Amino acid sequence: MEGAGSQNSHGYSRNEQEIDNLNPNFMSTQEKIYDVTTYGRSSIDLYSQEVGAPFEKIPGFHAFVGGSPLNIAVGCSRLGLKASLLTGVGKDKVGDFILHFLKEEGVICDHIPVIEGARSSAVVLGIEPPDRFPLVYYRDNCADSQISIDHVLEAGIEKSRLLEVSGTALNMEPSRSSAFLAAEIAQRNSVPVLLDLDFRADQWHDIRAFGITSRAFMRNVNLVLGTEEEILAAYIKDESQLNISHQQISAPEIKGDINEAIKGILKLGVEALIVKTGSRGAMVYQTDGSKVEVPGFPVEVVNILGAGDAFAAGFIYGFLKGWDLYKSCRMGNACGAHVVTQLGCANFTPYEKDILEFIESKGGF
Amino acid sequence: MEGAGSQNSHGYSRNEQEIDNLNPNFMSTQEKIYDVTTYGRSSIDLYSQEVGAPFEKIPGFHAFVGGSPLNIAVGCSRLGLKASLLTGVGKDKVGDFILHFLKEEGVICDHIPVIEGARSSAVVLGIEPPDRFPLVYYRDNCADSQISIDHVLEAGIEKSRLLEVSGTALNMEPSRSSAFLAAEIAQRNSVPVLLDLDFRADQWHDIRAFGITSRAFMRNVNLVLGTEEEILAAYIKDESQLNISHQQISAPEIKGDINEAIKGILKLGVEALIVKTGSRGAMVYQTDGSKVEVPGFPVEVVNILGAGDAFAAGFIYGFLKGWDLYKSCRMGNACGAHVVTQLGCANFTPYEKDILEFIESKGGF
Amino acid sequence: MEGAGSQNSHGYSRNEQEIDNLNPNFMSTQEKIYDVTTYGRSSIDLYSQEVGAPFEKIPGFHAFVGGSPLNIAVGCSRLGLKASLLTGVGKDKVGDFILHFLKEEGVICDHIPVIEGARSSAVVLGIEPPDRFPLVYYRDNCADSQISIDHVLEAGIEKSRLLEVSGTALNMEPSRSSAFLAAEIAQRNSVPVLLDLDFRADQWHDIRAFGITSRAFMRNVNLVLGTEEEILAAYIKDESQLNISHQQISAPEIKGDINEAIKGILKLGVEALIVKTGSRGAMVYQTDGSKVEVPGFPVEVVNILGAGDAFAAGFIYGFLKGWDLYKSCRMGNACGAHVVTQLGCANFTPYEKDILEFIESKGGF
Amino acid sequence: MEGAGSQNSHGYSRNEQEIDNLNPNFMSTQEKIYDVTTYGRSSIDLYSQEVGAPFEKIPGFHAFVGGSPLNIAVGCSRLGLKASLLTGVGKDKVGDFILHFLKEEGVICDHIPVIEGARSSAVVLGIEPPDRFPLVYYRDNCADSQISIDHVLEAGIEKSRLLEVSGTALNMEPSRSSAFLAAEIAQRNSVPVLLDLDFRADQWHDIRAFGITSRAFMRNVNLVLGTEEEILAAYIKDESQLNISHQQISAPEIKGDINEAIKGILKLGVEALIVKTGSRGAMVYQTDGSKVEVPGFPVEVVNILGAGDAFAAGFIYGFLKGWDLYKSCRMGNACGAHVVTQLGCANFTPYEKDILEFIESKGGF
Repeated sequence: MEGAGSQNSHGYSRNEQEIDNLNPNFMSTQEKIYDVTTYGRSSIDLYSQEVGAPFEKIPGFHAFVGGSPLNIAVGCSRLGLKASLLTGVGKDKVGDFILHFLKEEGVICDHIPVIEGARSSAVVLGIEPPDRFPLVYYRDNCADSQISIDHVLEAGIEKSRLLEVSGTALNMEPSRSSAFLAAEIAQRNSVPVLLDLDFRADQWHDIRAFGITSRAFMRNVNLVLGTEEEILAAYIKDESQLNISHQQISAPEIKGDINEAIKGILKLGVEALIVKTGSRGAMVYQTDGSKVEVPGFPVEVVNILGAGDAFAAGFIYGFLKGWDLYKSCRMGNACGAHVVTQLGCANFTPYEKDILEFIESKGGF
Repeated sequence: MEGAGSQNSHGYSRNEQEIDNLNPNFMSTQEKIYDVTTYGRSSIDLYSQEVGAPFEKIPGFHAFVGGSPLNIAVGCSRLGLKASLLTGVGKDKVGDFILHFLKEEGVICDHIPVIEGARSSAVVLGIEPPDRFPLVYYRDNCADSQISIDHVLEAGIEKSRLLEVSGTALNMEPSRSSAFLAAEIAQRNSVPVLLDLDFRADQWHDIRAFGITSRAFMRNVNLVLGTEEEILAAYIKDESQLNISHQQISAPEIKGDINEAIKGILKLGVEALIVKTGSRGAMVYQTDGSKVEVPGFPVEVVNILGAGDAFAAGFIYGFLKGWDLYKSCRMGNACGAHVVTQLGCANFTPYEKDILEFIESKGGF
Repeated sequence: MEGAGSQNSHGYSRNEQEIDNLNPNFMSTQEKIYDVTTYGRSSIDLYSQEVGAPFEKIPGFHAFVGGSPLNIAVGCSRLGLKASLLTGVGKDKVGDFILHFLKEEGVICDHIPVIEGARSSAVVLGIEPPDRFPLVYYRDNCADSQISIDHVLEAGIEKSRLLEVSGTALNMEPSRSSAFLAAEIAQRNSVPVLLDLDFRADQWHDIRAFGITSRAFMRNVNLVLGTEEEILAAYIKDESQLNISHQQISAPEIKGDINEAIKGILKLGVEALIVKTGSRGAMVYQTDGSKVEVPGFPVEVVNILGAGDAFAAGFIYGFLKGWDLYKSCRMGNACGAHVVTQLGCANFTPYEKDILEFIESKGGF
Repeated sequence: MEGAGSQNSHGYSRNEQEIDNLNPNFMSTQEKIYDVTTYGRSSIDLYSQEVGAPFEKIPGFHAFVGGSPLNIAVGCSRLGLKASLLTGVGKDKVGDFILHFLKEEGVICDHIPVIEGARSSAVVLGIEPPDRFPLVYYRDNCADSQISIDHVLEAGIEKSRLLEVSGTALNMEPSRSSAFLAAEIAQRNSVPVLLDLDFRADQWHDIRAFGITSRAFMRNVNLVLGTEEEILAAYIKDESQLNISHQQISAPEIKGDINEAIKGILKLGVEALIVKTGSRGAMVYQTDGSKVEVPGFPVEVVNILGAGDAFAAGFIYGFLKGWDLYKSCRMGNACGAHVVTQLGCANFTPYEKDILEFIESKGGF
C-alpha cells in the first residue's frame, strides 16, 4: 500500500470518493509553501507535577504549550512538514512563552497576530492517570478567538497543501466567521480541509450549538477527525445527553446513537470520517459506505493526553505523503501510541525518524 | 388561481431542479398547521411624518411595526395564509405594541418569547422620497437576537409548509445557531427554506461576515431572495466595495460582479435565486442555467419601503399555491407594486382580494 | 430680581452652611465662561401623539429631545444663562437631531463628543395624563454613557459657575468615573456641584447600587435635588421597597423613611437638599437642621413631564443670580408650573421674560 | 508605647484624630465574631520554579494562592486572628484549590460565594530576583469581581473588628458598589476601614479611574496603606506618568509629587496614611501633620513578593491589639522582613510565635 503518492498525482476534488483518490499530492506544485496550516486555539498548558494528586493538593505545574491546532502544528513540524499555525496570542508574557516554544519547534509563526487587549489562553490541568484529567480553561477574552477575516486573508491558506481547523475555533466571533472563510478559500484552491472536532463543552453558549455549527462547517470539509464522544457531541439534541464529571472538559461522556451520527456526518459531503478509538486504533468511514478498522500499536499507557493531536499529526503526514487512509491512520496510531508512553502533550510528540523506527520495531505499517 | 396545486402533488426534494417541481404542495398534508414560519427581527418602526424633511427637522413619527420577517408574516396573513412569526420581544411596552399589532393582523404569535433583560427592537426612519430613507437601528441587546435553540425546537417548524429566514438573524448568537438549526429541521422534514438576504451592513462585526455566514447557511436553503445589492453583498471581499450614504442602511451601494455572485449562490445547492429588481420586476435564476425575467406592474411610486417584503409575501403565496416560479414572482411583483403606491410598510401590504383585483385590472398574470 | 448678587460677593466654600452664604456669585469673575455645565444623558424623546391611548394603540409620536441634564441645559439657556451640555451622541441621524435642537436653543455643544460605535439614546413614551407615563429606554450601548475622563478634562468645568450632574450618569463606566472626576474638578475650583438624583431603576445592575453610588458621589456635592421618591431610592436596602407599575420608570413607588433619608444625605456634607414636591412646591433642608417650605404656583396640570427639569433650570437661574434658596426655589416652582400646563418637556420650558411675567401675574416671589 | 490597648478602651470614631485614639479595642465586645474581614481578589498564583529564568523559558511553576486580601487574611490567621475573607471563586477546580488552602490555614470561608458562570482568578509570575517579577493576570470574567450587594449584606461586616479592602476590588461592577456598601456598613457600626491601595494598572479601563475611585472610596476609610508608587497612582493625571516595564504590573514606575499626593489623601478624611517603603520600613502620616518614620528590620532579601501583604497582616495584628501606629507598623515591618527571606507569598507569611521571636532576636519593637 506504499508509494501511492507517486501514482496519484491528480488534483483534489470533493467529488472523488474513493480512498486512493483522496491523495492531494501537491508536493511538486511550486505555489505551495506550507504543507499544513492549522487554525485555532493555542495556550500555555500547566500540567500537575504530582501525578495522582487531587487538584487541590497539586504543589506545582510543568509549563508546556497546548491547544489542539498548536499541538498538531508541532507534531507535523517534528515529522518534517512545514507547518504554519494560525492562532492569536495576547500582548503578554504568556504569548511570548507560546511563540518562543513554537519557534524552537520550527513551527511557522508568520501569521500569528499579537492581539492588543486580549489575553493569551491558559489551561490548568490536574493529572490522575490513567484517564482522569480535570482541567480549567482560561479563555475569557482570549486572543485566539480574535482571529479576524483579515488575518485569514493574509495567512496564505491557498499556499498550503492542507488546512486543519479545530472545532473550538467555531464557538465565537470573530474566529468563527474567519474559520468559515478559511475553509472556503481552501476549497476554492483545491486545498483539502480537515476538521478536528475538538469538542470542549464549556466553550459554547449552548452545547447543541457545537453540533449545529460544526455541521454547517462540514459542508466545506473533506476529512473529519474525532473521538466517538465528539462525534456524538455533534448530534446532541438535549443537554441531558452530556455528562462531565470531575471537570474533565476534554473527556465528556455523551449518550447517543453513534451510527446515526456517523451517517449524518457523511451525508454532509465529508469524504471520510476518521474515528479515533484510543488503544484500539482508528476507524475510517467513507461516503461509499465502507468502514475500515485500523489497528493501534499496543503500548503501556502512562497518560492519554496529547494522543489525539499526535494521531492527527501522523495522519496528516501520511495523507500528504500520498498514502491511503489506512496507512495514514496507521501512522497516526503510531504517533498516538508514542505519546501515551510519556507524560506530556505537544512536548512529547515524536520526530519522524523515531516514529518510523518505532513502527518498524512494532512490525511496520 | 386555477388549481395548480392539485397537479403538482409530489413531495419536495432539493434534487429536483425543474421549475415546476419546486412546488411543495403540502396542502393536503394533515400535519402541517402553519403555511409559513418566518424567522428573525421585529421592531417598532417609527416613520417620519413630514415626508421630505431632513432628519433633524422631523416633527413626529408614525408608529408602525417592521422587520423583514415580521412584514412578510403580516403580508402572508393578509393574503390568507396561516403565518407564524418566530422572533423575540422584550418585556416592555414596545413589545406589547408589536404583539398587539401582530394579533390584530392574525399572525400566529404562539412562538414569540418575551425575553427578560433584552429590549424590543426599534427603528427610526426619515423619509425623503422617492428613495432616500436614512434610518437608525436600536438593536443593541435586542430581544430578536435572543431566539434560542429551545425556542426553535418549540416553534413547530416541521409543521410549517415553508420556512422563511431573514439574513440579519444570522449576525449574532444565539439567534444565528438557532437559525441554522431551524433550517436543518426544515430540510429534514421536507419543508422548503427561503432565505431573504436582508443585508443590513451595520448589524455585522465585519461586513464580510454577512456573506460568509449567508453562504454557509445557503447549504440548507432552497430559495434565495434579494436585491442586486444584497446579492453583491454576499460576495464582498473588501470593505471598500460598500458605500452607505446618508445613513441609508437599507439601501447600500455595492460594487462587484453580479453574475459571479449569482453563479456562486447557485453553486451552493440553492435551487432558485430570485432577484428583486424594483420597478422592473424580478429575475429568476436556476441551477440549470435558466434565467427568466418576470416583468413588474407599472405604478406611480410614492415610496419603495416595504416593497421587498410585500414581494416576498406574494411570492410565498404563489409558491404555496403550487404556482410555478414565474407566476409566483408575478404575484410578488403585484404585491410590491401595490405597496409602493402607499406610504408605509407592513401596514399597507395588500389583502388577497384586493391584490387579485389589482392584477386583473393590470391585465392578469 | 433685585441685586442679591452684589451683597454676597464672597467665594464659595463647603464649610459655609448658611443659606445666604451658598451664593457663589462668580458673575464678575472673568475666568468663568459658562454659567452652568450639565452632565449626563441626552436622547430623542418620542411622545405619544394620542394622549390617553394605551401604549399598544399609539398611532404616532411627537419628536422631542430629552434627558434630565439636556432639559436643564435648554431650560437654563432659555432663561438667558450660558449653558454647556456634557453628554455624548452616536454617529447617527438621531445624534444629528439632538445636536440640531440644542444649537437652535443656544445650548453650548462644544464639549459633546460624537462617539463612534455607540448609539444616541432614545426614549419612547406613552402619555396617559395626568400622571401615567409608561416609557421605554433605548440605552444599551448608548453614547452618553461613554463620556470619558478626557472628555471631562476638556469640558472646561473649572470655567463654569455651576456643575449639574444627573444621577443616571453614575450607573456605568466610563461615565461614572468621569462624573466623579468632574465633581472633584469643580470642588477644587470652587464651582458648586448640584446633583439631580434622576433615579431610573432599570438603568442599574442592582437598584441599591443607585443609592450606594449616589451617596459616595454626594461627598463632593453642595446641593442635591430630587423628588421624595428619589430621596427614598437613595436609601433602598431591599428590592421589595420598589414598585414600578405600567413601566413608569420615571415614577416609581418606593417605601422607606423619608426623614431618615434626608438626614442621611445631609450628613454626607451636602449643604442643602431640595425636595421637589410637585404642585405643593419644594422643601429645602439644610445641615443646620432648618427646613423651609417653598410654596408652588397653582396651575391646571396638563402633564407633569418635564416639570422637575424646569424646576432645576429655574432654581439654577436664581442660585446664579445670587438669590437665596427660598427665592431660587420659588423661581424653580414657577418654571415647573409653567411646564405642566403644556404637553412636552424641554420643548416647553419657559423663556426668562415669560416666566418673570408669569410670576408677577401670580403675585410675585 | 506598649500596652496601649488596655488604656484606650473607647469606641471608634472618625472624629478622633490622635494616634492613640485610633485603637478600636473591641476585643471584649461580645458581638464581634471576626477580628478582620478582608475584601477583594483571590487567585491561584503560579510562581516560576526557575528563579532567574526569563519568562519564555520557565519550565514549571509552584502552585500557591494569592491576591492581596487573601494574603492578608492568611497572614492574620497565622498571627492568631479570626480572619474572614470576602471574595468569590468560580465553580471550577481552581476554586477548590483556593478554598482548600484557605481552610487549611484557618481562614473563615463562610462568606465566599461560588459564582456560577465566572472563573476563579489566576496569576502567572516570572521570578527574576531581586526585584523583577513579570506577571500575567487571568481576571477576565473573574469570580472575585462578582461580589454582590447581597454577598456583602450577608458577610457579617458589622461583626468584624476591622474591614480591609483591596483597591483592585473597586475596578468594576458589581464588586465596586458592593465594596462601597461594605465600607458604609463598617462606618455605621464603628468598624474601622483600612484600604490597601493595591494598584494594578491593567485592571482599570483608564488608569486614572483608579485614583478617582479610590479617592471617592477614601471618604469612608480610616487607614490607607500603600507603597509610594501606589500613592502616586492615586493622583495620576496623565497616562504618561505611568511606566510598566517587563510586564511588572505589581511594580509600576510612576512620576508625580508624593507630598502633594499624601496631603491630598489626608484631606479626604483618612486618619492615617501608612506608606510602605520596603527595606527602609514605613512612614506614618496623620491629619495633624505628623510624620513618623518606622524603621524596618534588616534582613537579606531573597524576594520581595508578599512583603506588602505580610506587612498589612502584622500591622492589623498590632492595631487590633490596641498598639499605637508606630508599634503596629514595627510589627508590620517584622512580618514583611520575615517574608522577603523566603521565596513565596501567602505561603511564607509568619506565625505569631515565630515573628515575636524574630522581633526579639532583632532587638524588640
